[in-house]
Amino acid sequence: MPRDISHIPASLPSLTGATAVMCPGVVAFAGSGPGDPDLLTLKVAKALLEADVILYDRLVSDEIMAMANGDAILEDVGKEGFGPSMAQDDICDRLVHHAKAGRKVLRLKSGDPTLFGRLDEELSACEAADIGTQILPGITAASAAVAAIGQSLTQRRRNSSVRFLTGHDMKGFADHDWAQLARPGEVAAVYMGKKSARFVQGRLLMHGADRTTPVTVVENASRADQRILATTLDRLPTDLADAAFAGPALTFLGLAPRAAAAAPKHIQMELA
Amino acid sequence: MPRDISHIPASLPSLTGATAVMCPGVVAFAGSGPGDPDLLTLKVAKALLEADVILYDRLVSDEIMAMANGDAILEDVGKEGFGPSMAQDDICDRLVHHAKAGRKVLRLKSGDPTLFGRLDEELSACEAADIGTQILPGITAASAAVAAIGQSLTQRRRNSSVRFLTGHDMKGFADHDWAQLARPGEVAAVYMGKKSARFVQGRLLMHGADRTTPVTVVENASRADQRILATTLDRLPTDLADAAFAGPALTFLGLAPRAAAAAPKHIQMELA
Repeated sequence: MPRDISHIPASLPSLTGATAVMCPGVVAFAGSGPGDPDLLTLKVAKALLEADVILYDRLVSDEIMAMANGDAILEDVGKEGFGPSMAQDDICDRLVHHAKAGRKVLRLKSGDPTLFGRLDEELSACEAADIGTQILPGITAASAAVAAIGQSLTQRRRNSSVRFLTGHDMKGFADHDWAQLARPGEVAAVYMGKKSARFVQGRLLMHGADRTTPVTVVENASRADQRILATTLDRLPTDLADAAFAGPALTFLGLAPRAAAAAPKHIQMELA
Repeated sequence: MPRDISHIPASLPSLTGATAVMCPGVVAFAGSGPGDPDLLTLKVAKALLEADVILYDRLVSDEIMAMANGDAILEDVGKEGFGPSMAQDDICDRLVHHAKAGRKVLRLKSGDPTLFGRLDEELSACEAADIGTQILPGITAASAAVAAIGQSLTQRRRNSSVRFLTGHDMKGFADHDWAQLARPGEVAAVYMGKKSARFVQGRLLMHGADRTTPVTVVENASRADQRILATTLDRLPTDLADAAFAGPALTFLGLAPRAAAAAPKHIQMELA
């Protein structure tokens, strides 16, 4: 883990006033955003400088962990999209242990902790142990990904609502979910949707979705190795297989990259 | 407009590397978050220091505007939830004018510009004038508001998807939208939903929603004057009228404040 903090000015905590973010014996659940350190909030940047101990997920980028203060205890709890590397109970135990020892505990999750962050079990564990908690929001992957393709999640006269959902759970969807998602102009951001792409395609087509509905997949949103796949519902499973994305990917149903975003700078790869 | 920037270290741009965010002749559409300056991203904080001209909405907080560099031209374009104070065409003209003059143009919107930010007309105007654009994400009000009530937007075994929608447009909803929102466990974040509260209540009850469904309204999320109203679908219009919220409010359908969040620190007002 890189620990070079020479580029962090000591005066960061005074950026927007001298108020401390972290409290001893309290656990702060914070979002690190999708990877670009510049997408950290000032609040979380301060928390990284103040924390005594930081428990972080695998998807929190090295550049962000390098912004932690040099004295902080760093614990990699390795949770991934498809299940924890460290058992959830063990993570909860670590949080309670450190808080009971009076430490300023930072629980750092990628994206925003309130969206597909599996936050509640950890909040409940703290609550059961009478440990105080706070939540520090982060930029969620959908926001960074839609910015990368130059689009809005909502647009007047196109869609007045947007859905955030996870590919893991779409097999439990009811008919009216699919009917709604299949409508023209509907926009949805699917987290962890790579494995479910063919299933989603099948259900949407069954419910009358247009085969030419635009679908965009953004891998590693906001990171240096970000890649964008612009495709259609018809071609989604095939193009996604060809792309062989290994990193975390965000799938937009109903959105194509904006023309201006289709410049070489943004689109590293686009399968026709 | 306060312009005290004495608390901003000159070294902020070097925080995560010396790369400039802003380019001359390019318009950056940026989210300022819901109000707390600490919820700015580092990227937007840098953009405020680099911009030659900043066009900002009424809901961008004074504390955030105080973080702009002292030489920046500040233009209040006054857009609000219920329609622009400056005509949309005029805003577009200003953006193009400043970009054509080779300035680093920052278009600052509250929250996240891609969510109910009316971004597309302004992007299109820049595109038509052959002006380059970029989008800098911000923390959306729903993220800050759900953090304030100690909840997650999604939770395993409760809801695997969440909807973000605007109260303005819910009158155009189809039957299956309402049927879905009316289901137990469903969670939705309604932006600008104060005026539509009675209509929403009526439709949800008509589609079988439980009268005791929790509803939480957060006014001025993340700001010093934040207030939280915890109610039920049954009592929503009455309690909302009693609360007389004047600031921007975010309504959660299907979420109550978490027990731990019901401490006096968080709940300034809770109508029974």
